[in-house]
Amino acid sequence: MEKSPEFEHPVKAFGWAARDTTGILSPFKFSRRATGEHDVQLKVLYCGICHSDLHNAKNDWGLTQYPVVPGHEIVGVVTEVGNKVVKFNVGDKVGVGCLVGSCRECDSCTKNLENYCTKQVLTYGAEDIDGTTTYGGYSDIMVVNEHFVIRWPENLPQDAGAPLLCAGITTYSPLRHYGLDKPGLHIGIVGLGGLGHVGVKFAKAFGAEVTVISTSMNKKKEAIELLGADSFLVSRNEEEMRGAGGTLDGIIDTVSAVHSLSPLLSLLKPDGKLIMVGAPDKPLELPIFPDLITGRKVVAGSLIGGLKETQEMIDFAAEHNILPDVEIIPMDYVNTAMERLVKSDVKYRFVIDINCAVQK
Amino acid sequence: MEKSPEFEHPVKAFGWAARDTTGILSPFKFSRRATGEHDVQLKVLYCGICHSDLHNAKNDWGLTQYPVVPGHEIVGVVTEVGNKVVKFNVGDKVGVGCLVGSCRECDSCTKNLENYCTKQVLTYGAEDIDGTTTYGGYSDIMVVNEHFVIRWPENLPQDAGAPLLCAGITTYSPLRHYGLDKPGLHIGIVGLGGLGHVGVKFAKAFGAEVTVISTSMNKKKEAIELLGADSFLVSRNEEEMRGAGGTLDGIIDTVSAVHSLSPLLSLLKPDGKLIMVGAPDKPLELPIFPDLITGRKVVAGSLIGGLKETQEMIDFAAEHNILPDVEIIPMDYVNTAMERLVKSDVKYRFVIDINCAVQK
Repeated sequence: MEKSPEFEHPVKAFGWAARDTTGILSPFKFSRRATGEHDVQLKVLYCGICHSDLHNAKNDWGLTQYPVVPGHEIVGVVTEVGNKVVKFNVGDKVGVGCLVGSCRECDSCTKNLENYCTKQVLTYGAEDIDGTTTYGGYSDIMVVNEHFVIRWPENLPQDAGAPLLCAGITTYSPLRHYGLDKPGLHIGIVGLGGLGHVGVKFAKAFGAEVTVISTSMNKKKEAIELLGADSFLVSRNEEEMRGAGGTLDGIIDTVSAVHSLSPLLSLLKPDGKLIMVGAPDKPLELPIFPDLITGRKVVAGSLIGGLKETQEMIDFAAEHNILPDVEIIPMDYVNTAMERLVKSDVKYRFVIDINCAVQK
Repeated sequence: MEKSPEFEHPVKAFGWAARDTTGILSPFKFSRRATGEHDVQLKVLYCGICHSDLHNAKNDWGLTQYPVVPGHEIVGVVTEVGNKVVKFNVGDKVGVGCLVGSCRECDSCTKNLENYCTKQVLTYGAEDIDGTTTYGGYSDIMVVNEHFVIRWPENLPQDAGAPLLCAGITTYSPLRHYGLDKPGLHIGIVGLGGLGHVGVKFAKAFGAEVTVISTSMNKKKEAIELLGADSFLVSRNEEEMRGAGGTLDGIIDTVSAVHSLSPLLSLLKPDGKLIMVGAPDKPLELPIFPDLITGRKVVAGSLIGGLKETQEMIDFAAEHNILPDVEIIPMDYVNTAMERLVKSDVKYRFVIDINCAVQK
């Protein structure tokens, strides 16, 4: 007989889990594995709430195994290390993002692109290498192979910094990989939520002139005054969009709703790149001619980042004082936070204060 | 009053034109400009029939101004040069492709990418810089600014070589630009028509392992035995397609019909590139997640090539003995050829023998 989550492993753990498609989270007793020789055990201090946590809690993508403990923007402090661990010591500040495992030997893994390994182990709701289920960061303790643990810079706050581990790397990686990190480029950011607002900050730090493209005029003031964007386009204003035609070198599109790509392609210069990092649940219409072909334009995807690049991103954020704008909440506020997230009523990311909120 | 095409310019010319949306071509008297100081006048010897000639003759794209003289795969011999022409002498073999003009000063033009200049002048059916209409290569004589004229290598046959000027550069350019020209790469070519069959030859010449992807099993033998492809996939055979999943570095998609991109994206390795060179008249469905994002895949466009690259392509073709497979026809067969083209009944390109067929 399968062991219950509480007795599967030797180390007692406590978190909040969704049990069914209501997505409502409630206290959950489970367990973590003993710290293996390459493992790091950490006390979780803060965990960001990613929109995908909500999708997974409600089984919107049809992949959820209940109970599910979400959370993949995890920061904490090392409490134990395995005897072969080389990168970390007890007391170190660390982070854990979307991945806790990969095959370590495929083409993607050998190129430090564990995020494209087909055998990757997601931080929660996935089958781990030992066959057990992974549970995420809405919990008091994590045990993770050190390869998948990020060193946390001393000067980078852990609370506000937590969302860098998903929202941050998701926008940083395509800016870097697709050559959109050169000073003087004109970069568009579509959607001003958890991903988009960090994307603006990274693009500015790379020296770009940044245009935010949003459906809502309401966000203009904040985009420019608070986040430092240089200009703002309302995507529904055809005249404004036409006026900006052919001006952008690249666009990071963070929108998960079904939307039209044609107006975005029109904003690009020849050889411009439209990078999709949102995950619309239906295919989008891609006009090939003239939109894509005339001007040799690119539509491409990007999914989080590899571990090496995630470390680089965190170090870059620390160096350039890049921090997500967050609202810190106690754990028992999580269901209210999820309701507000559905209405985009957050600027711009919720972060759960795990340390204060978890009850044993 | 506007002058008729016959008396607009001083040099008498003769070609075949479509007069209405039947697309039927018939003899047409018109005129060419006097050879300007930077112009080359050429006697047209051969002209390939591109599928877009048919679309333009029938006004399928709603852009046609009748009468239209199609033809943008033009080879011939220089008969006169302007006094400031530096690249050509009377008697030189030359070629003219899809473009006869561009602004020469925009970003694209200064990067030798006249093909992405927004003021480009198409070889036929466009407004030339002097306000007159351009007429294409289904005619006896052309007058073209030398910048838009290609030197024709001595050892490259002009009859079979003509389609290189559109079909050739359309497939060569994306293989080069998107880094799909490295030996040992695995390249897919979708569609085995005028573009696809030349794409196979260029990809092989670059040292790729080439897979042809077609709706029809009928083309397998030819693809492998005649064109030198290494393997063949029937796109409707799901099992075969699944078996080849994640094996290709890049794909050149030459298909103009509406078709599904998802199975093609599945064939790509991580970081693989799907390059669209056909021009479907409706948007295609692009599945963003997981298809595009998982594996950081790219869907991009490419449109013919610039003049510098077209010259490079012609020289490369001459060096590697790359020639399209053609059926040479007399001019008065052109309407029958167009009917056969609709049925894809040609291997793989018609070329009109202009020299023998034009009557004055």
